[in-house]
Amino acid sequence: VARPRRSADTRTKLLEEGVAQFLANGFHGTGIKAVLDSVGVPKGSFYNYFESKEDFGAATVRHYSEGLAAAFDRCLAAADDPVSGLDDFFEWEMRLHTDSGFGGGCLVGNLGAEVEHDGPCRNALVACHAAFRARIAGALGTGQERGLVRTDIPAVELADLLVDTWEGALLRMKMQRSVEPLRQCKDHLLRGYLQP
Amino acid sequence: VARPRRSADTRTKLLEEGVAQFLANGFHGTGIKAVLDSVGVPKGSFYNYFESKEDFGAATVRHYSEGLAAAFDRCLAAADDPVSGLDDFFEWEMRLHTDSGFGGGCLVGNLGAEVEHDGPCRNALVACHAAFRARIAGALGTGQERGLVRTDIPAVELADLLVDTWEGALLRMKMQRSVEPLRQCKDHLLRGYLQP
Repeated sequence: VARPRRSADTRTKLLEEGVAQFLANGFHGTGIKAVLDSVGVPKGSFYNYFESKEDFGAATVRHYSEGLAAAFDRCLAAADDPVSGLDDFFEWEMRLHTDSGFGGGCLVGNLGAEVEHDGPCRNALVACHAAFRARIAGALGTGQERGLVRTDIPAVELADLLVDTWEGALLRMKMQRSVEPLRQCKDHLLRGYLQP
Repeated sequence: VARPRRSADTRTKLLEEGVAQFLANGFHGTGIKAVLDSVGVPKGSFYNYFESKEDFGAATVRHYSEGLAAAFDRCLAAADDPVSGLDDFFEWEMRLHTDSGFGGGCLVGNLGAEVEHDGPCRNALVACHAAFRARIAGALGTGQERGLVRTDIPAVELADLLVDTWEGALLRMKMQRSVEPLRQCKDHLLRGYLQP
């Protein structure tokens, strides 16, 4: 039996093109053929890398979330305190969205709104959304210990509020094609409601 | 020239089926044929009612938003004060989503995340999102005049924050299949941050 030829490099290229196309066109609006054409991979070899479009969607969501988590950890590690680290991370995201002309938004939010049915893709979305909330809650918890964040509400609940508002602000950013909704979210919550 | 046979009743049925199917499957995941089959309308007569799928999407978004606005106005008119009216409206939405098993979410939010390209559908989404924000801002402004809402932040900005958080909470409701995110949003903002 011939062994399918696979390369980690091609897989990563497919995932990065997946992030771009799912962000631009949604799950149902993205065709596998267009992804393969962009990367220059023949149609037949898609199944060497992924079992199905669902499976590709799930892997793309995980790839996107790993990138986001790495950026988050970088910002937190470089900052003097967790609230400044969160601020830096949100600023980094704001630059990213400004540079891309306020299209796209958040892949987890976009596909989370669109993919209703149970399956690998929804499972990946739920897991990545929860992992991101846990990261934010961790930073806010450390902030509470250092007296930088209000302690009358659990860090997990504050994280939920921050993530919910950020997701809604990303949606409004897309509607208004402006970074202002993201700045408002940061000012009202991180520099407002969350303060001790 | 034969005049196309149209009925307002059939148009409304198509729009209501459109709301249900776009909520369940997104814009790209919804086929016009499935909508027509559900309502029992032959394929050929779709174009008696709508110019295109885009045009149908735009009309569906407007139909959905009119229903939401009517419910909002009913809640505000029946309540003693605008903050209680907002609370009643959010409670009404929470019952609606609980009854539908936390699927669907907000049509404007879902399609707003998905429909990137300029056109009638995006225009309708932007207009309906703005109209809803204006309704909330109006209620909060009256609340400010009556001393029920903090006045150090403009009502429009508070409305943006409330709508953003609600949209993000609807997304998390879909992820967690629970009404809890919506309740958290209401408690933290309407009964927390927005208080005088």
